[in-house]
Amino acid sequence: MRMALGLSYNGQAYSGWQSQPSGRTVQDRLEAALQQFSTQRIATACAGRTDAGVHGLMQVVHFDTGLRRAPFSWVRGTNAFLPADIAVQWAQGVPDAFHARASATGRRYAYVLLESPVRPSVEAGRVGWIFHALNGDAMRAGAAHLLGQHDFTSFRAAACQAPSPIKTLRQLAITRRGAAAPGTAYWRFDFEADAFLHHMIRNIMGCLVAVGQGQYPPQWMHDVLAAHSRDAAAPTFSPDGLYFLGPVYGAQWGLPTRTAAYDWLP
Amino acid sequence: MRMALGLSYNGQAYSGWQSQPSGRTVQDRLEAALQQFSTQRIATACAGRTDAGVHGLMQVVHFDTGLRRAPFSWVRGTNAFLPADIAVQWAQGVPDAFHARASATGRRYAYVLLESPVRPSVEAGRVGWIFHALNGDAMRAGAAHLLGQHDFTSFRAAACQAPSPIKTLRQLAITRRGAAAPGTAYWRFDFEADAFLHHMIRNIMGCLVAVGQGQYPPQWMHDVLAAHSRDAAAPTFSPDGLYFLGPVYGAQWGLPTRTAAYDWLP
Repeated sequence: MRMALGLSYNGQAYSGWQSQPSGRTVQDRLEAALQQFSTQRIATACAGRTDAGVHGLMQVVHFDTGLRRAPFSWVRGTNAFLPADIAVQWAQGVPDAFHARASATGRRYAYVLLESPVRPSVEAGRVGWIFHALNGDAMRAGAAHLLGQHDFTSFRAAACQAPSPIKTLRQLAITRRGAAAPGTAYWRFDFEADAFLHHMIRNIMGCLVAVGQGQYPPQWMHDVLAAHSRDAAAPTFSPDGLYFLGPVYGAQWGLPTRTAAYDWLP
Repeated sequence: MRMALGLSYNGQAYSGWQSQPSGRTVQDRLEAALQQFSTQRIATACAGRTDAGVHGLMQVVHFDTGLRRAPFSWVRGTNAFLPADIAVQWAQGVPDAFHARASATGRRYAYVLLESPVRPSVEAGRVGWIFHALNGDAMRAGAAHLLGQHDFTSFRAAACQAPSPIKTLRQLAITRRGAAAPGTAYWRFDFEADAFLHHMIRNIMGCLVAVGQGQYPPQWMHDVLAAHSRDAAAPTFSPDGLYFLGPVYGAQWGLPTRTAAYDWLP
């Protein structure tokens, strides 16, 4: 039968999602834990590969197995063999027609950015950082140029394996979340698209921060997009503040849509 | 002249605040960084010692130095020599009458607790965890017995060096913060007292969680307090979710009262 799992992880200690010979990836840890629990070799397919240092609030995987266990046994049993910074949140049997990647009609990410004269400490590795004050209206005006279906070549890493650079960006919401101390704030950037190119969000973040600091006018976002060239954009921003919130699936699959850790982020 | 610094740290990697021969404490790291910046040996006194694994959002220290630098030079210069999980947030010259510990009229702590069938992952080491659902009203009724001036011997660690077990608990507020996923919630416990005994908050937390799970009625908190015996109370709760929010000082010192990381916690 086919099982789907949702899992959360802190990406700081890992070389990203996808399995590597080093074994220091989230997929390697998950598959090792599944094998220890099930005493079978289990290969997983995921909804969205995350880069080194990127966190997951709800990654979703599916796999096929002959082992019959109650769904929560998969959760508890796998978690017993996972390191403290990775945990399966839910498990559910799914029809064979479900595929964690192919069934996803969208992906959602959040980027959390600390604006402060002082670098992060309590939240180091889990938040991006910018020294200068950001102009939210300028960033929002810039972001508006990216909404909709476009060729996102300018924001695509050289190593990207996607068959097409054309993606549809459905949401790019920018909110200033809290400013407990003078001269500081947390910013949150919420992204949703059908799919993202490699480094696409971090490359967009680099450009938005440049606009937010006044280095370029909002219209520059349009110019970068229209250039269809990686050379036109700003450097790739840090992975520290990037969270994969999870895939979007049709309601017919009946899968959970949120995990507890959604409440952890500002 | 006398300087005061406010600093934030993630306590996971450290054997607590106070200097030890091992050197693996926050105070050791801070004093080493101050020495590297100032090329002088600088001894600091803090507002509240934190245990191993406990985090600080605004620890305050003072020290005396002959070195004259602009306040933000102390911040930037010291941070350059501190590890990523500790950062000075502000620096300010203070009168010689100011003492980080003795001038504090109170201390504030928050405990963040995840209620979930699944252990923490993204936030592992930075949140306490309880498997069972908690009853907020029962915990609040129990907590009410502790407010005011009492002999807190029942909640005091054997190693406690405080001259008196009598403290005044001014606040113990319990709020359910978010429940993004079914069967989960973050709870936040806000404590303020003139001062706390060693392990006092973690011992109170152990008892409150026992009441919240229905193991004891709220009145049991009164019985534990009245017993004046550590044997009457529940085991010491995990340090993972405990944050030193900072000391309370009179307005005459003109010191900052919050740091950016206040907005990071649920």
